[in-house]
Amino acid sequence: MPALSQRSQQTPFSPFRKLAHLADAAKSRGVEVFHLNIGQPDILTPPQALRKLAHRLEPVLAYSPAEGNASLRDKMTGYYARYGIELAADELMIMTGASEALQLTLFACFNEGDELLVPEPFYANYNGFAHIAGVRIRPLPCYIEDGFALPPVEAFEQAIGPRTRGILICNPNNPTGAVYGAEVLEALGALACKHDLFLIADEVYREFCYDGAVFRSVLTLPGLESHAVVIDSVSKRYSACGARIGVLATRNAALREALGRYARLRLSPPGLGQWLAEAMLEDDAAYLEEVQAEYDRRRQTVFRRLSRMPGVTSYLPGGAFYCFARFPIRDAEHFCRWLLEDFQYEGKTVMLSPGPGFYATPGRGRDEVRMAFVLDCDRLEQAMDCLERALELYPQRRSPDAVVMGVPGKKAGG
Amino acid sequence: MPALSQRSQQTPFSPFRKLAHLADAAKSRGVEVFHLNIGQPDILTPPQALRKLAHRLEPVLAYSPAEGNASLRDKMTGYYARYGIELAADELMIMTGASEALQLTLFACFNEGDELLVPEPFYANYNGFAHIAGVRIRPLPCYIEDGFALPPVEAFEQAIGPRTRGILICNPNNPTGAVYGAEVLEALGALACKHDLFLIADEVYREFCYDGAVFRSVLTLPGLESHAVVIDSVSKRYSACGARIGVLATRNAALREALGRYARLRLSPPGLGQWLAEAMLEDDAAYLEEVQAEYDRRRQTVFRRLSRMPGVTSYLPGGAFYCFARFPIRDAEHFCRWLLEDFQYEGKTVMLSPGPGFYATPGRGRDEVRMAFVLDCDRLEQAMDCLERALELYPQRRSPDAVVMGVPGKKAGG
Repeated sequence: MPALSQRSQQTPFSPFRKLAHLADAAKSRGVEVFHLNIGQPDILTPPQALRKLAHRLEPVLAYSPAEGNASLRDKMTGYYARYGIELAADELMIMTGASEALQLTLFACFNEGDELLVPEPFYANYNGFAHIAGVRIRPLPCYIEDGFALPPVEAFEQAIGPRTRGILICNPNNPTGAVYGAEVLEALGALACKHDLFLIADEVYREFCYDGAVFRSVLTLPGLESHAVVIDSVSKRYSACGARIGVLATRNAALREALGRYARLRLSPPGLGQWLAEAMLEDDAAYLEEVQAEYDRRRQTVFRRLSRMPGVTSYLPGGAFYCFARFPIRDAEHFCRWLLEDFQYEGKTVMLSPGPGFYATPGRGRDEVRMAFVLDCDRLEQAMDCLERALELYPQRRSPDAVVMGVPGKKAGG
Repeated sequence: MPALSQRSQQTPFSPFRKLAHLADAAKSRGVEVFHLNIGQPDILTPPQALRKLAHRLEPVLAYSPAEGNASLRDKMTGYYARYGIELAADELMIMTGASEALQLTLFACFNEGDELLVPEPFYANYNGFAHIAGVRIRPLPCYIEDGFALPPVEAFEQAIGPRTRGILICNPNNPTGAVYGAEVLEALGALACKHDLFLIADEVYREFCYDGAVFRSVLTLPGLESHAVVIDSVSKRYSACGARIGVLATRNAALREALGRYARLRLSPPGLGQWLAEAMLEDDAAYLEEVQAEYDRRRQTVFRRLSRMPGVTSYLPGGAFYCFARFPIRDAEHFCRWLLEDFQYEGKTVMLSPGPGFYATPGRGRDEVRMAFVLDCDRLEQAMDCLERALELYPQRRSPDAVVMGVPGKKAGG
């Protein structure tokens, strides 16, 4: 048998479905599993957009232009204008999901061995995309005690080495739910300018900012025309994860030209998804408002419940639909496995994502988990009932006095 | 401005849309352009499948499994059985087009610097996929005089070096239309076994074999369970290029595991395209029969016309919907540009793909072009009228006695 490539054996496993077989086994034993482990919302894809799609099917489903259909790119400029982002249609390219947008950005911006600064915890698949491109992620620690606020800009500056070529942030943040304010973004922008770094922002959760927080895109920062790159997706906004329609937006024409070489190789982004994306962008105000309100209720629900659990540290996330929590445990992966293999409460259990998968620094996140608010409030309450009971019963629970660690901050959990 | 990566500047341009701006300019001058340059058929996507799709839209367009929906994979096993290919559903993975299937195969099978033997001319984007993966393509010359038959197996064996890890063929062939018979495939399979090489076959034109030729998949070759990999796509079969639904099929479980790591990083193939693909696979016999008959008429039309053009060498392609032709010219790219910039016949011209884009050996293909039979016979006749007239008028036409070159064979053109 011919040997496989070494790189394929070193490519990081995506952690999101690592425990999936245990969940399947639990279900086959008749246990109901509440999936808080992946960002697959239960929210309906806009029904009127699905209805419109049926009337927009062209008789030949042809390749679109490599950069996406002109009509969709035009509509997207109108969408960005809602957030004060003035873009021409040719400054954005339609991608096969945010995943492809980021992968091609890494290819186009970085040589093998170049370094990328990324606040951690971060979206776990960044590790895999960086591995494929041979880019080294240098993590900058954030802490649960202050709701995973961005490190001070001085910390970024100190981390810059001779191979550092970019900064990657996710705002609002997956996996933490943190939202970065204008001030910290401006400071980061100035740093990117000063050191001539790409500032790449994954902004797929733009809609989901709570408590009146105003979202600020890196594309609105002054003087960053050559540096700012936005990674976007319709997946979360319209609960259309399967559409695989992402967007890359940058005013850097040379970068778009380089990205175009890669984009033309794969011919075109998905055609049906592009038609649906256009339909979803029309008359979406009521839908988005309702979805935002629903996620707001959910984060309040989870925060209220976590706050009452002894030994649990968490916070009220300002955006997205995730939060991290620190539990009185030693090994989150063991705990998550135990939940699926050895635990049930009234015939139910909960599936969570172990924290370490979101960190690049070895040892970090071992007592943390990520939760996605992808179930309605009633089911979230049931999931929290399970979790509360599980933390009481978990044989390897640590005593409360051993729990406190990390830097002090605006600790929200009790 | 931050520098772009060196690799992005070295990534080969996809040649297919290189002259697109000249075609746009011609159109804006009122010239009708017959596009024989890209494999985007005018054939209707199966209308009944598009109608079914409208009734199969689920209320949440969720991520599919990374390897594709189980129902689609099941249906695909039934499809392969039509060709005597016995596969279990878990031996195939749904990909975002054949492009992704091949790119991930290169990542999973080859280390950087490994060599891949590819008969040339070959589908031009193989160059780009190999560049991204750091794989070196070693071309094996085929010749227009015998309709681009595969080189003898001895030529493959002689080309094997210490870094050679695989062979990549396209059967039926894009860009030549050649179909490889059972005997030559068996010899190639035995060679792959002997030297423990991956044998990767791009079989997206499987349906399009003419003159009673029987298609043979590498997955039916004995003893190749670990070596054979098939790249497939619904794009051409059902004229659904924009669906971006490909398939990777292999019985090598370790390879599927390695591919799965990459597949999980990009989460899932397009969801709407997967639903459409299922609908297209149902009751498709009459559709496929009609489409095959239509392409057969088209290739006969093009062959008949090329045969009558003085100084032109071509052949009757046995499969797919392409052919190569050698013209009495010195520089195919100059000729293709001239067609768009300086020529018209009754307000019309034709767009072709210059030959060199399909060769890795410098200097080969300079007097050749590829034509795709993606227009109906009436429009193909008009395109051939243009081409015939253009070859008469082209200022840099070579004299007929300078045309003959290459090895002698079953020359079909005059």
